[in-house]
Amino acid sequence: MFSGAQISLYPMSDDFADVILSAIGALEPYRPHFRIETDDISTLIVGPPEQLFPAMRDLFLAAARSGKHCVLSATVSRGCPGEPDDPICTPLTGSRNNLPLADRIEEARARVAGTDGTGQAVAAQFSLYPLGAGHHMDEIYGCIEFLKTSGVFDRSKNFCTKLRGDAGPVFATLAEAFLRFGAPEGHVALDLTVSANSPTAA
Amino acid sequence: MFSGAQISLYPMSDDFADVILSAIGALEPYRPHFRIETDDISTLIVGPPEQLFPAMRDLFLAAARSGKHCVLSATVSRGCPGEPDDPICTPLTGSRNNLPLADRIEEARARVAGTDGTGQAVAAQFSLYPLGAGHHMDEIYGCIEFLKTSGVFDRSKNFCTKLRGDAGPVFATLAEAFLRFGAPEGHVALDLTVSANSPTAA
Repeated sequence: MFSGAQISLYPMSDDFADVILSAIGALEPYRPHFRIETDDISTLIVGPPEQLFPAMRDLFLAAARSGKHCVLSATVSRGCPGEPDDPICTPLTGSRNNLPLADRIEEARARVAGTDGTGQAVAAQFSLYPLGAGHHMDEIYGCIEFLKTSGVFDRSKNFCTKLRGDAGPVFATLAEAFLRFGAPEGHVALDLTVSANSPTAA
Repeated sequence: MFSGAQISLYPMSDDFADVILSAIGALEPYRPHFRIETDDISTLIVGPPEQLFPAMRDLFLAAARSGKHCVLSATVSRGCPGEPDDPICTPLTGSRNNLPLADRIEEARARVAGTDGTGQAVAAQFSLYPLGAGHHMDEIYGCIEFLKTSGVFDRSKNFCTKLRGDAGPVFATLAEAFLRFGAPEGHVALDLTVSANSPTAA
């Protein structure tokens, strides 16, 4: 298993570099579990699949607290057959998606309901790609059924689903979508945009 | 067939709204062919698959000419079985991917070689997701073989491929990857980031 994300942070501000450099400290608690590499386009984090969304949440919250309009964009992946197995990516809690679809929807919903708020409102949109053989649209439709009752569902859009609410349950919902849908050892990718402090937020 | 993209433009500048509003005029020539809808996260364009990357290129060039560090992020899709067929999405030139893989690589390379430069240097990274049944990794590896000889290949990264060069051949390369790989009528998604004027560009 290999799991990780390519993450980019975009503060819409003249001092974007300062906002990014200040926020990146929020990744420190995750550093012992992750391999982290940065270039001019994105920062790679490779590590346990359950830690990816908490790390992105903390990074984004640190940037959003600047008050500037900030966006986090990420490509998240697990189980890519083109990547080597890596012990650093061993799931902390075992697979979360070896149950029937209806049970997974129920467990995902319960976990989001038990998530603490952060006080930061965000909007997010994402696409889930369960790759390879199998019923990829069934998994997508199952995931959408979960999303609609997650408490942070905003609306379905072409190619993606939009969420809105407190960053706590929003990132928890994204993590559940990524961890519980698609084949347990399958190749799943997720393409994510999260926005805060937008002057045009509906 | 249904094809389109959710596009976001991120100018790292206090006057980000002005940069975006000025750039959006670059989509005017495409408006007769597209359905265009905007919300607080992204702009949807739905139209012929061959026109998606030229439209994104012109939009991004208009923003990059501000001299500000700008990023375009997009989720591009064709053939999604969850979207209705739409006559507006009819390919202009017929399918480009009903030939054997080796021939498609050759044609893609020739088309990029014949593309004009724009004078704007960019870096880009993207992931290609051929969804549903079929040999999705064969199509991905075939696409990577094309990319390596495209003239704008920078390097392979985890989960994505990075390109670097003039915006003309870079966007042409992205279009070829999207149009020629994956099943002809299959569901293909592409997750894209393009950056210009970065102070940390390698």
